[in-house]
Amino acid sequence: MSAVVIGVDFGTLSGRAVVVSAADGTELGTAVHEYAHGVVERALPSGGPLGPDWALQVPQDWRDVLAIAVPKALADAEVIASQVIGIGCDFTACTVLPTTAEGVPLCEAGFADRPHAYPKLWKHHAAQGQADRINALAATWREPWLARYGGKISSEWQYAKALQLLEEDPELFTLADRWIEAADWIIWELCGQETRNLCTAGYKGIYQDGSYPAPEFLEALAPGFSALLPKLEHPLSAMGGVAGPLTPFAAAMTGLPEGIPVAIGNVDAHVTSVAAAAVDPGQLLMVMGTSTCHVVNGDHLAEVPGMCGVVRDGVVPGLWGYEAGQSGVGDIFAWFVDNGVPGSYAEEALERGISVHDVLTERAARIPVGAHGLVALDWHSGNRSVLVDHDLSGVLIGTTLATRPEEIYLALLEATAFGTRTIIDAFEAGGVAITELVVAGGLLKNAFLMQLYADVTRRPLSVMETQNGSALGSAIHAAVAAGAHPDVNAAARAMGKVHRNAYLPDESRADAYDQLYAIYTELHDHFGRGGSSALHTLRKIRNAAR
Amino acid sequence: MSAVVIGVDFGTLSGRAVVVSAADGTELGTAVHEYAHGVVERALPSGGPLGPDWALQVPQDWRDVLAIAVPKALADAEVIASQVIGIGCDFTACTVLPTTAEGVPLCEAGFADRPHAYPKLWKHHAAQGQADRINALAATWREPWLARYGGKISSEWQYAKALQLLEEDPELFTLADRWIEAADWIIWELCGQETRNLCTAGYKGIYQDGSYPAPEFLEALAPGFSALLPKLEHPLSAMGGVAGPLTPFAAAMTGLPEGIPVAIGNVDAHVTSVAAAAVDPGQLLMVMGTSTCHVVNGDHLAEVPGMCGVVRDGVVPGLWGYEAGQSGVGDIFAWFVDNGVPGSYAEEALERGISVHDVLTERAARIPVGAHGLVALDWHSGNRSVLVDHDLSGVLIGTTLATRPEEIYLALLEATAFGTRTIIDAFEAGGVAITELVVAGGLLKNAFLMQLYADVTRRPLSVMETQNGSALGSAIHAAVAAGAHPDVNAAARAMGKVHRNAYLPDESRADAYDQLYAIYTELHDHFGRGGSSALHTLRKIRNAAR
Repeated sequence: MSAVVIGVDFGTLSGRAVVVSAADGTELGTAVHEYAHGVVERALPSGGPLGPDWALQVPQDWRDVLAIAVPKALADAEVIASQVIGIGCDFTACTVLPTTAEGVPLCEAGFADRPHAYPKLWKHHAAQGQADRINALAATWREPWLARYGGKISSEWQYAKALQLLEEDPELFTLADRWIEAADWIIWELCGQETRNLCTAGYKGIYQDGSYPAPEFLEALAPGFSALLPKLEHPLSAMGGVAGPLTPFAAAMTGLPEGIPVAIGNVDAHVTSVAAAAVDPGQLLMVMGTSTCHVVNGDHLAEVPGMCGVVRDGVVPGLWGYEAGQSGVGDIFAWFVDNGVPGSYAEEALERGISVHDVLTERAARIPVGAHGLVALDWHSGNRSVLVDHDLSGVLIGTTLATRPEEIYLALLEATAFGTRTIIDAFEAGGVAITELVVAGGLLKNAFLMQLYADVTRRPLSVMETQNGSALGSAIHAAVAAGAHPDVNAAARAMGKVHRNAYLPDESRADAYDQLYAIYTELHDHFGRGGSSALHTLRKIRNAAR
Repeated sequence: MSAVVIGVDFGTLSGRAVVVSAADGTELGTAVHEYAHGVVERALPSGGPLGPDWALQVPQDWRDVLAIAVPKALADAEVIASQVIGIGCDFTACTVLPTTAEGVPLCEAGFADRPHAYPKLWKHHAAQGQADRINALAATWREPWLARYGGKISSEWQYAKALQLLEEDPELFTLADRWIEAADWIIWELCGQETRNLCTAGYKGIYQDGSYPAPEFLEALAPGFSALLPKLEHPLSAMGGVAGPLTPFAAAMTGLPEGIPVAIGNVDAHVTSVAAAAVDPGQLLMVMGTSTCHVVNGDHLAEVPGMCGVVRDGVVPGLWGYEAGQSGVGDIFAWFVDNGVPGSYAEEALERGISVHDVLTERAARIPVGAHGLVALDWHSGNRSVLVDHDLSGVLIGTTLATRPEEIYLALLEATAFGTRTIIDAFEAGGVAITELVVAGGLLKNAFLMQLYADVTRRPLSVMETQNGSALGSAIHAAVAAGAHPDVNAAARAMGKVHRNAYLPDESRADAYDQLYAIYTELHDHFGRGGSSALHTLRKIRNAAR
């Protein structure tokens, strides 16, 4: 009986458990469990309405993944529980929640009718006003950490969300003993002990050079806000360590052996770079799903405007881990399919047994570069990098009475590729070379899209050979925690899965895309860098009208 | 047996005949005949392909309206042919064709395989390059007529289209004895004599102060182009006159009495102002269909940048008739319904026995002003006024993952209203007051849209009480030609149909729309007045890629 490890990846809409060989990472079984409540955007489960740009989740949905998907994956793998030697988890981030001192989410502690008692999902964008104030004050005070985050922290992160909690529901802020990343909370559920991983503390918690922002800074933002610090305070654990043994309660819930090591929590994107063995400088990992997270390691500290963050040892020990991101990618394509495509396309898809995405992609692939006459901005969910502004929104120019749905779809695919190129350009301008793209995530199954990214960025593109990249990364961490490999790098070499240079740029298409990218850049700078405040004004009008 | 007159309106996709009482304009019967070939945009009937932005028509389709719709309308009216005392016609303009000296269209004279032998429909936009050169030279030469057309003549008009003919098919240019508006050609078919109306000569043929542009000017554009002048030369007839008696051939085709007077040809928009009794200064007639034509009379000559034209006596004798236009209105809404709305909307429409437009309008009506967070530019078919640029294209900003189809539809409705307000603002800045909107055309049936226009423009809005406004205007001209009324003004008073102040502006909605209009104007000026050349660049890339 060979030893196996389990990785569990907590995504935006579902959780996925994978069972892999501890020796070589061979995938033996997998299972997905969709969250019963998905993303809570309009109303609480108890019925109370939410404002615009809110996005919450329900912790019980996460426990259900442990209770349902883990045993299913074991059954799918046809292994028995006693073969499992370790478990690791990764989570979306910054997904953050207030809990009691014992780790009970406040929404389960008698406050189910209070929006702020729930976990705020990464894409909760209702704290932009708070983020703006944090950034303004940090700039005024010349806070040294600001440059580590590209000059702007995001409304998605711990501080903006916590400040919104304090200002909109101060009672709950006071009642929350802990303000904790879901990535750490789920580990707490498994091993019964609070731990805090260095990755989320660095990328989402403004932990730099050994400390969080000073209490004086927090008090200057809002009186009482320094009370956040004790809610965060905890020793930080290095990536690849052991959080503790699986509790009897968690063993009963998951069907796994009591006492097996539980790895320190991880972030989905960052842990994927391990699974993709994309940890050398210049290798830009892109986890492409509803959104895209970019992770790249560098051997020196550079300040890159608009990056999400740079954290020493944040991805692998010994290197500076850089993160960037695009807030909307696959969810823009999905929005278009749901809202902008005539019924005849759905009928064709049904008849042919393919998806509407497939129909549109097939037609888009026949369009010569630029023949649609369109350029879009991929800001339907705001812009994480390089503008760090979630009050932006989507733009499409060039439509005519002859414009067809597949042309708009293509323009949206291209817009996300241009968004990636904008990030690459910023990295390179900042002195961080990008030589290769390594793609993981659900979108890598679209070969046309992959070739498009290679063409637009003029970079060779490697792809993960599994669609379970994050979960595999968590399993690799579990294997290290279980002692099956000496360290994360060695485990990644033994267990990682990647197909190098799966797509190479086509020079003539790359040349043609340069022209469209120039227009994208013009629009990007006009609407995103202050040439026009139209998108911000529209957002204000919209919020006032609702 | 009371006397009746017949008006025939030749639109973009169909022709419509209406039978009305010669005394009071009461509508007795109507019939529509759709053109078999519709708009010829991709390939000739003989199969030959067309370039981008071409739009042709087939003359036999127009004759079919006379042969089929006229008898049908008579039958519908339950009147007998001998009651008919006159007939008048109006046409889209500038729709222009090359013919032999006898009026035979070149596409029927052995050149059916040559694109330039066909009538070029008003929305043929492939002569923009020619229009640009005409405008540049006219500006350089300080041609006095240029200011009468808002500083720019349109690619839709006689000269740009004729120059394209000369340059792309010089043999056909030479073979064309006549270059004639369809509005005059159809009258030639009815009475067997060439006539030329003052309205199209003034608005589309640069006939000002008694003459066409000078031969030297035309030769400077292209050697040989002055040969156009003899193809145009003909005495011009005042509006409201008689062209001649109905020929035996036309009587046989239509079933009407031989010898009844045929009125001088008219333009659809201009003749509608007669039917709407909207001929006093300040009354802006808007004929809203696939596109919108604006006609307003002023008591003095003003130079309004971006207007289509101002012609002395062009609409009614004694006043200066101003014309403006929006190239795309109803056809933008139709494009969206055909290309951008999910199947569920069509299913709901089918179940409820209403149109998809109705479903979208119903939902749009529930959205508070600005709550969609969107602004669009209505340039999907270019911009006729005030930019006079058909290489522009549509823009939409503000989309998010929560944006719904009815919100985009509303943004498109609003964009066309903002386009109208832009035109009104230009008129007023130029010294031509606009005090009332009078709406005719197919779109007036959408009450929500009408209220929107009243709100956006802060003007009272009157509507025609018939959906056959142009045809009624032609019938009024027929009645004058037949001697039933002393002149057009008297006939308009007796026979016109309008419901005054049907919609009044809502002040609070008007205030809210001011904010969105400010953003529209910013986008309009940025993309349309040279701040950004992105739309022009995209058009060039598109045309090169195809």
